[in-house]
Amino acid sequence: MKLHLKKNDLNKGLQVVSKIAQNKNNNMNTEYGIFIKAVNNQIEIQANDYAMGIKTIIPGIIEEEGETFVANPYLIELIRKISNDDITFIKKDTDSKLIITGGNLKFECATMNASDFNAVEIVDLGYTQLETNSLILKDLIDSTTFSCATDMSKAIFMGAYLDIHDTNISMVATDTHRLAIKKALLETPIETPLQVVIPSKLLAEISRQLPVDIPEIVTITAIRNYVAVRFGNVYIKTQLIEGNFPNYERVIPTDFQSEIIVDRDIFTGAVERTSVVAKDAQYNVINFTFSNQKIKLMSQHPEYGIVEDVVPCTMTGEDLTISFNGKYIIDILKHCRQDKISLKVKNNSPMLVTDQDKTDCLFVVTPMRNK
Amino acid sequence: MKLHLKKNDLNKGLQVVSKIAQNKNNNMNTEYGIFIKAVNNQIEIQANDYAMGIKTIIPGIIEEEGETFVANPYLIELIRKISNDDITFIKKDTDSKLIITGGNLKFECATMNASDFNAVEIVDLGYTQLETNSLILKDLIDSTTFSCATDMSKAIFMGAYLDIHDTNISMVATDTHRLAIKKALLETPIETPLQVVIPSKLLAEISRQLPVDIPEIVTITAIRNYVAVRFGNVYIKTQLIEGNFPNYERVIPTDFQSEIIVDRDIFTGAVERTSVVAKDAQYNVINFTFSNQKIKLMSQHPEYGIVEDVVPCTMTGEDLTISFNGKYIIDILKHCRQDKISLKVKNNSPMLVTDQDKTDCLFVVTPMRNK
Repeated sequence: MKLHLKKNDLNKGLQVVSKIAQNKNNNMNTEYGIFIKAVNNQIEIQANDYAMGIKTIIPGIIEEEGETFVANPYLIELIRKISNDDITFIKKDTDSKLIITGGNLKFECATMNASDFNAVEIVDLGYTQLETNSLILKDLIDSTTFSCATDMSKAIFMGAYLDIHDTNISMVATDTHRLAIKKALLETPIETPLQVVIPSKLLAEISRQLPVDIPEIVTITAIRNYVAVRFGNVYIKTQLIEGNFPNYERVIPTDFQSEIIVDRDIFTGAVERTSVVAKDAQYNVINFTFSNQKIKLMSQHPEYGIVEDVVPCTMTGEDLTISFNGKYIIDILKHCRQDKISLKVKNNSPMLVTDQDKTDCLFVVTPMRNK
Repeated sequence: MKLHLKKNDLNKGLQVVSKIAQNKNNNMNTEYGIFIKAVNNQIEIQANDYAMGIKTIIPGIIEEEGETFVANPYLIELIRKISNDDITFIKKDTDSKLIITGGNLKFECATMNASDFNAVEIVDLGYTQLETNSLILKDLIDSTTFSCATDMSKAIFMGAYLDIHDTNISMVATDTHRLAIKKALLETPIETPLQVVIPSKLLAEISRQLPVDIPEIVTITAIRNYVAVRFGNVYIKTQLIEGNFPNYERVIPTDFQSEIIVDRDIFTGAVERTSVVAKDAQYNVINFTFSNQKIKLMSQHPEYGIVEDVVPCTMTGEDLTISFNGKYIIDILKHCRQDKISLKVKNNSPMLVTDQDKTDCLFVVTPMRNK
């Protein structure tokens, strides 16, 4: 193999596979594994940690075709530090070393047996397929996955539920204490519905890759026990979490005593201040009293004292006092978009939080027992 | 006590004491201890972790004099988050709570017994005293302390040696593998010489505090077993490390086979690239060959391979090959200032590194055994 590459193209390609290439949780001892394949006028960079396989294509000149598998945690860092724009990769079939040169630098890089790499093959035919765009998919992921469980004992909730039928695409995440739902529409209806649970860590990696400056079409293909996500030069295969995701529609409260409209920034500031001292206590409990067109917040820490704050609001319905975990409220407020948000509440019942005039994104949070 | 404070002034004052107030290594159980004293038209904020005592004065209106001692790790964060400019502190003598209000926020903050705080008293008379300015002192600290030992077994080397006699002020740090010396001049000679070893962590804290935008006069006073450093509104007392600092002048090499002048940025780039792969190996050994107006760098890692780079230089003297710890060389290069630096070398002997035309800052580094 002999390749002539531009540093910038190579860096971009390595960046795409970097997280997966460096995942230490993969099955084989191929940590930091990067697979490079140059055939048919195409230079591919791949990584595969068995939970996720990823590949990308980079521009470059193939003087001699070939492939190589490098397991070196420092390869990406070293290439980023090369001061020259032109980088050459040479790997002779008779030698296990990949020779990387750029400027005055020469790196004789040890390689693994290329056939030991579990290549990421593109499968175009699945049992169902859809097209959306990178902005929509990124928004679905980023608006919900913060609510996924991190606790291994709730395996199914460590992923987000991707539910696609007709022209409806939605993502749902919950750790049983809080729930986030984000809905969007497809331009073309999907033929066979798709309902899968994707691990939140893999969704985070997909979100990191999705282009936002110049949106791209994203194709999602479902194949037995995984889904493939394709956009631009990037192809990702991701494992699924098996099991049934519970009926989330049933969890969304519909019966309320009061609705509160409040300025998001002002409310966020008050919740953040009130959490500062309580976050060290067991559950970061903040007590909210809705009364008289005001929200009164109160938290206490057994050693450090009591914090109170007050925020003006527009309120319809009955006065009431209810407690929530401050961290959950802050998480939700970060994911609302409008200046004004709506809180719908009922005594000792889950609260529904949305932007004031938008219901494509819903958040539900369970109260804590009042002290 | 009743104080009216501006948020910005209060934040600045709390920032000065923050590190010391939050030091968990202090003797008493007064972690995060902040002492506030308002008497004689002066509002003082203090912290004291026994290795270092610090106090500062902030502007504000004293409606009622008093003092309080707060041990709350979140006080600084909470005050930073107050959205209002005007903050009030009220502490009644009959109540242990300090009431902090700002905007709609009210914090009933638990306090400790004020008499339990070990107050930082200003001592103006020491056995010797000098004046310098904040830029010079900061430069002395920042140019040298990176070379201090971090290994507890070399207690004396965990500090930097401040050596002041006549109009000479210098700071010296070594971990026995490398040595850094920075020299400067005083405007007025010191009467009694001052030779003390100050713990590097305390020097780092002093450096953090020293103003650079608007340089200030710094007064250093030596009192038996500590020194006091005073500038602007800040007064710091720092512990010393007892023991004799060895004669560092003797360690500076004077006999060389070659002198190399090299561009600092280009050389730094090559050393950084060559260290990437070797840094994971036991000693980050880089092999330097000086020959033919070039520096050839080489490092190897048993698993990952061999990296080589070449840098042009101007060289007088004999060819030679010598190995150093790459991290030590990078540390030194970061602390050189000029575009061109001088390396003076001799086979199997310590190397002397300085800026090309400046000798107020010297670095010595011991070679590693050539492989």
